[in-house]
Amino acid sequence: MTHFLFKNATLATMQSGTEPYGLVVDGALAIEHGMIVYCGPADALPDAYKTWPDRDLGGAVVTPALIDCHTHVVFGGNRAREFEMRLQGASYEEIARAGGGIVSTVTATRAASEEDLLTSALPRVDALLAEGVTTLEIKSGYGLDGASELRMLRVAKRIAQVRNVTVRTTYLGAHAIPAEYKDQPDAYLDEVCLPTLEQAHAEGLVDAVDGFCEGIAFSPDQIKRVFEKAKALGLPVKLHAEQLSNLGGSVLAAEYNALSSDHLEYLDEAGVEAMAKSGTVAVLLPGAFYTLHETQFPPVKLLRTHKVPIAIATDCNPGTSPLTSLLLTMNMACTLFRMTPQEALAGVTCNAARALGLTDRGILQQGMRADLAIWAIDHPAELSYRIGFNPLKERIVGGAI
Amino acid sequence: MTHFLFKNATLATMQSGTEPYGLVVDGALAIEHGMIVYCGPADALPDAYKTWPDRDLGGAVVTPALIDCHTHVVFGGNRAREFEMRLQGASYEEIARAGGGIVSTVTATRAASEEDLLTSALPRVDALLAEGVTTLEIKSGYGLDGASELRMLRVAKRIAQVRNVTVRTTYLGAHAIPAEYKDQPDAYLDEVCLPTLEQAHAEGLVDAVDGFCEGIAFSPDQIKRVFEKAKALGLPVKLHAEQLSNLGGSVLAAEYNALSSDHLEYLDEAGVEAMAKSGTVAVLLPGAFYTLHETQFPPVKLLRTHKVPIAIATDCNPGTSPLTSLLLTMNMACTLFRMTPQEALAGVTCNAARALGLTDRGILQQGMRADLAIWAIDHPAELSYRIGFNPLKERIVGGAI
Ligand SMILES: [Zn+2]
Ligand SMILES: [Zn+2]
Repeated sequence: MTHFLFKNATLATMQSGTEPYGLVVDGALAIEHGMIVYCGPADALPDAYKTWPDRDLGGAVVTPALIDCHTHVVFGGNRAREFEMRLQGASYEEIARAGGGIVSTVTATRAASEEDLLTSALPRVDALLAEGVTTLEIKSGYGLDGASELRMLRVAKRIAQVRNVTVRTTYLGAHAIPAEYKDQPDAYLDEVCLPTLEQAHAEGLVDAVDGFCEGIAFSPDQIKRVFEKAKALGLPVKLHAEQLSNLGGSVLAAEYNALSSDHLEYLDEAGVEAMAKSGTVAVLLPGAFYTLHETQFPPVKLLRTHKVPIAIATDCNPGTSPLTSLLLTMNMACTLFRMTPQEALAGVTCNAARALGLTDRGILQQGMRADLAIWAIDHPAELSYRIGFNPLKERIVGGAI
Repeated sequence: MTHFLFKNATLATMQSGTEPYGLVVDGALAIEHGMIVYCGPADALPDAYKTWPDRDLGGAVVTPALIDCHTHVVFGGNRAREFEMRLQGASYEEIARAGGGIVSTVTATRAASEEDLLTSALPRVDALLAEGVTTLEIKSGYGLDGASELRMLRVAKRIAQVRNVTVRTTYLGAHAIPAEYKDQPDAYLDEVCLPTLEQAHAEGLVDAVDGFCEGIAFSPDQIKRVFEKAKALGLPVKLHAEQLSNLGGSVLAAEYNALSSDHLEYLDEAGVEAMAKSGTVAVLLPGAFYTLHETQFPPVKLLRTHKVPIAIATDCNPGTSPLTSLLLTMNMACTLFRMTPQEALAGVTCNAARALGLTDRGILQQGMRADLAIWAIDHPAELSYRIGFNPLKERIVGGAI
C-alpha cells in the first residue's frame, strides 16, 4: 500500500522536547511510500490524510522499531557445555584444555560453511525480530583469517536478503589475536587484519570498522593502526573499550570521531568528555555485565552530565552474552545500570540509530523511514518494566502494511 | 490418539542415577491414555510399541514439561510507572504517596472483577506456557479481604479451564497486613485470613496454604496460627521465609512438614538441616533477587550438602519480580546463584513437582503423566545457557498429540 494512516495511537516519538518519550496521546501517524509524512496529535492531522486507508490502534503504544546496534550474532558452534563446565567448577585452564573459550568459537566458525553460519544465526535473528527489531548491526571477528572474516560478513549481508531487516556490517578483524599469531599482534594486523579489511571494503561488505582495545586483545597503538586504515578507506569506526580496564580507548576513539565506544565499565571522566566533544555514542551492554558478574558499573551519571547519548544493545555472542532479547536488555539497563525506562527506550531507538550512523530512523517524525513497533501496552515504561515478556503486536518495516 | 511413540529422541528424563539429566541418547518414549508407558533406550523398546503411530524427533531433546511452582500471576493493576518513578529517583515515601507499593496492587485487585483479573492474567500465563510450562502454581494474597481472596482463587481455577494447563492454587491470605488492620495482624488473622481460608477450602479452592514470615509481614507465631488452621483442614503448607532476614521461618515450616520454603536468601544451616529432615523443598526465586538488587545469596552449597531438593520459580508478581519466563529463571539461577544447568532443569521439573506435592509428573518415566517439552536444542544445558531465547518446538499436555 503506498499510503496508510494509523489513528488512535499513543505515540512514543522519541523526539526531543519537554514530554518524556516525546509522548503524544491520541496521536495519528501517516505513511506514504515507506516514509512518515505525519506524526503528531490527531487533531492537527492535515485533511489530505484523513481519507487514506486507516487502522484504529485503540490507544496502543507505537514506538520507533527497535535497533540492536551491537551484536556478534553470526558465529559457529555452541558454548553451552563450557557454560555448564564452569558452573560445575572447572577452571579456565580445564575449559581451555577442553577446547573452550573464544578459541572454540573461532575454530567452529572457520569450519562452518556460509550456509552453516546462516542457518545457525537465523533463529537468533528471528528472536530479535520477534521483539520489533528492524535494524541490526552484525560484526565479524570470529574468523580471524581472511576467508573466514569475509565469510562472516557475507552471511551478515545475506541475513538482510532472507529476512525483512536492515543489517549494518562491522568489520571486527581486531577482535582477538588468533593462536597462529600468538604474541605477534602487529604481524596479525599486517598480514591478516588490515589486508582483509581492504578486501572486505572492496567487496562492499563493510559499513564500519571496530576493534577490541584491552590487555587481552589489542593496545591503543595497534587499534590506532586499524583506525588509520579505516580512515584511509573512508569508513567510520567504533571500539570495544574500557570493558575490563581503562586503556584510554574511548579517548582514542573520540579522536577518530568514532560512531560509538562500547562496554565502558571502566570509562573515566576524561573519556566521557572526549566522547561528548566528538559526539560519540556510549553503547552499554548489560548482558555481558550480567553474564560476567561484573561489579564495576559504567559511569551512567557522568554520561548524563556530559550529555553523551547512551545506546544499549544485546552484544549477542556465544561467550559473554548469549542474549537475544532487546526488551530484556532494556530491563537489565534499568535494573542493573539504574537507567530510566525512557533512557532504555532511547537506547534502542534514536541513540542506537546514531551509534550506527543512521539518520533516517530511530525517531517517529516526518521524513523518517516508517519502521515502527506497535505494542499491546498502555505506557512505554512497560517495555522496560516487564522481564521475559513480549507485548509486540506488529512490526512495520519501511511502511509495509 | 490413545497411543503414540516418539522415536529418535534425546531424553532428559531427570530420573536420578549416574548420568546427568538422566540422559538417554537415541531414546524412545511411548504414551498410552495420557501416561508414559515406556521411556528409555530405543534398543530396549518392547516390541508391542513398535507398530504404534510414531514420530521421529531427529535427535531433539525431550524433557519433562516445565512447572512454575511459585507465582502470583493473578493481580490487578500495573506497576510500571512505580518502576519508572523509582529509577527517576523518587523515594519510597514519594512512591507510597503516589499510591505505589503493594497497596496499589491490593487496591487494584479489590477493584477488579473476576473477568478483569482473568483477562490481565492470561497474557502472563500464555508467556509461561509458550516456554513449555504445563503446571502452574498460583497464589492469592493481593485481595486481603474475604471476597477478593476468594475471587483471586476462582480466577486461578478458571485459568485451568480456558488454557491447557494444570493449576495448583495456594491460599496466601497471610501475604501482607491490609491498611485497615494496620498494627493489628492478629485481628486480621482472626477476622479475615483464617475464616476466609475455611471458606475457600469449603469451596474447593485451596491446594496449599502459604504465608509471608518477615518483619514487614507476619511473625513466626502468627504464621503458626495459619499453619495450625491448615493442619486442621488437612491442607499442606508452604512459606515465604528468610527473604530479608532470618526469623526461623524455615524451621517452623519444617515442623509442619511444609512442601516448600521459598526465597531463603538468609537461611542458615539450622534451617537447612530442618528442611532436609522434613523433606521440604527449597524454592529459590532469582527474579526477585535480581529485581531487588539483593546481595545476600541463598545457601546453595549448604542445600547441596544436606541434599535438600532445590526448585526455582518465576515468583511472577508486579512488585519484586515481573518475570514471565521460566527459561530466563533457569539462566538466572545459574548466573546469579551459580547453580548448574542440571540443577536448574531439576528445579523446574522434578523438584518443582515435589514443591507442589505432585508425584505424577516432573520426571520422564513409566507411570508418569505424559507432560513433555520438545526442544530444538542438542543438549539440555542450552536451556540454561541462552538468555531471552525460546527453543520450544512442542508442548505435550497429558499425552495429547
Ligand atoms: Zn562486542
Ligand atoms: Zn512469592
